[in-house]
Amino acid sequence: MRVYNFSAGPAMLPLAVLERAQSELTDWKGSGMSVVEVSHRGKDFVSCAEQAEVLLREVLAVPDNYKVLFLQGGASAQFDAVPMNLSAPGDVVSFLRTGSWSGKAVAGARRQGLQVEVIADQKDSNYTTVPAPSEYEIAPGSSYLHYTPNETIGGVEFDHIPETGGAPLVADTSSTILSRPLDVSAYGLIYAGAQKNMGPAGLCVVIVRDDLIGKARPATPSVLEYAGMAAADSMLNTPPTFAIYLLGLVLEWIAETGGLAAMGERNQAKAAALYGAIDSSDFYSNPVATNARSWTNVPFLMADPSLDKTFVAEAAQAGLTNLGGHRSVGGMRASIYNAMPAQGVQALIDFMADFERRNG
Amino acid sequence: MRVYNFSAGPAMLPLAVLERAQSELTDWKGSGMSVVEVSHRGKDFVSCAEQAEVLLREVLAVPDNYKVLFLQGGASAQFDAVPMNLSAPGDVVSFLRTGSWSGKAVAGARRQGLQVEVIADQKDSNYTTVPAPSEYEIAPGSSYLHYTPNETIGGVEFDHIPETGGAPLVADTSSTILSRPLDVSAYGLIYAGAQKNMGPAGLCVVIVRDDLIGKARPATPSVLEYAGMAAADSMLNTPPTFAIYLLGLVLEWIAETGGLAAMGERNQAKAAALYGAIDSSDFYSNPVATNARSWTNVPFLMADPSLDKTFVAEAAQAGLTNLGGHRSVGGMRASIYNAMPAQGVQALIDFMADFERRNG
Repeated sequence: MRVYNFSAGPAMLPLAVLERAQSELTDWKGSGMSVVEVSHRGKDFVSCAEQAEVLLREVLAVPDNYKVLFLQGGASAQFDAVPMNLSAPGDVVSFLRTGSWSGKAVAGARRQGLQVEVIADQKDSNYTTVPAPSEYEIAPGSSYLHYTPNETIGGVEFDHIPETGGAPLVADTSSTILSRPLDVSAYGLIYAGAQKNMGPAGLCVVIVRDDLIGKARPATPSVLEYAGMAAADSMLNTPPTFAIYLLGLVLEWIAETGGLAAMGERNQAKAAALYGAIDSSDFYSNPVATNARSWTNVPFLMADPSLDKTFVAEAAQAGLTNLGGHRSVGGMRASIYNAMPAQGVQALIDFMADFERRNG
Repeated sequence: MRVYNFSAGPAMLPLAVLERAQSELTDWKGSGMSVVEVSHRGKDFVSCAEQAEVLLREVLAVPDNYKVLFLQGGASAQFDAVPMNLSAPGDVVSFLRTGSWSGKAVAGARRQGLQVEVIADQKDSNYTTVPAPSEYEIAPGSSYLHYTPNETIGGVEFDHIPETGGAPLVADTSSTILSRPLDVSAYGLIYAGAQKNMGPAGLCVVIVRDDLIGKARPATPSVLEYAGMAAADSMLNTPPTFAIYLLGLVLEWIAETGGLAAMGERNQAKAAALYGAIDSSDFYSNPVATNARSWTNVPFLMADPSLDKTFVAEAAQAGLTNLGGHRSVGGMRASIYNAMPAQGVQALIDFMADFERRNG
């Protein structure tokens, strides 16, 4: 009954996780209550949230001098919250712009009154490239440097971690977190919406170095203010309990399947297979520079865009869903997050070959 | 296996709703995908969210000149968002303070630079009363009057709708929304966290009159800015899809069980039975003024507080869970929201009588 779901987010989750949640949705741990019905301050849920944080710290190797926050409002809320917490109006900040999401982060920083220096903007390539380290330099006096390691829409991914000369590095890791090992210590702050590799929509994970906490502007809404949320173990108000619970189950699944090193190998192999199929065909193409190809979001085009709709519809019939490209890019896009098995990617590759035979 | 769960929130949900969600958690509408795995911009989820809004408008009789917004951050986010959207720094606003939650709303308004006039503060009664209409008057020039119709912690509920002399009336209806009919047209804005009568935590419903939209301060975070969210049908960013889906199921259940008129009658009868049991006993007492007793949150005390732990533990053994009072009030608290059947309240009353026999 299940399909291979290539949605960019909310995205496919491990079936084992969904089945576990399903089995206990009316009776969690023999309590006679659903996990969505229990108080966030009761010992069962507090333990559930603590366990999710412990597992996240283990799986992602989060250093002890970083806080893990479970917030709401998605990564989009952080477009405002990061400036509110890390800077004062008028501060200089540096941004790398590689697509739609980094553009929205720029807009948030401007909304919060920052002097935004876009030190690299890949517009000339139609956002199909990332800048080389030699092509940009952090603006002097920057409170931080912000970038988007992977652009979900464009399928463009950095091949390096930007150098900041000591300023905090801030990253929107929504579409790559938990897809492979990450050196958290290279960052001042990372944030990520849950709905790709962590769980359902409605949860945003913020991992922030201790020394960056406690400098928020006085008018920062309490639910977005890091110091208060850190002091309250992210329960200053009622947290999104179901999403935190599912995150815990997803993390258990990652740990049981070999952790992030193994996950990274599987994801790299999936991406290599799909790009290989695209590159070996004259029928399909990927518009992104080779060094900037995303492991998680793979856009591909056909020479004749009038075939796009047929491709997407026939693929869905074959159990390969949500392959339509973003309207700003066109064509198709296959998002192949952690929960997409290699067999799903192979099924897509086989379908692509068959579609080419019939339409090429 | 299921218990009667008296949690103040997240709270008991209708079993029929949970079982429906359970049955389709791995395969929603025959899609081969979970509702938590599908794109919020896909037609299936867009239709699901639209249907939830349509049902909410029908069930609550929301006038056409009000927008319904599905936001994140809980009611707590609105403590800042309401001032950000409805006022400029330095504006006068009037607040009625009847307990803990209205106090937090006051703090939010002050954080946003408002001149807060607390025109009634029930501190002298230890927050066991509501002010009579004759005891307060809106401060001249107020941008709005804010109150909390029901204080979840204190179990204190207004017996009237405050008069504002034409200024917008703003209400945090988290613990009473959908518990009975509501005259939405009396309000400029109501907001409510979902985790009592609407669904799981992680969703906040804001219902706001059209003329109050579009005046937000420039630095309002986009995910909290009403005009942008209204224009985007609450999908400026990824919404909390599972919570919206469950809200839709809860609304279907309300509609099928007679709508808010019938719901109000059932809730009133449940509350009357429980207060009746408390009042007819010398063993139990309720600290709240008779005219201010909450339909949804019923605190009760015993003369000997050393029995509280035993009561709560034995009640849980008997399948009556989460009856511990809030630490600021002590004793016990029974939250009897929509999903708590009359039989659950009767089981509690029976247990209370038995406990009194054994300990009185």
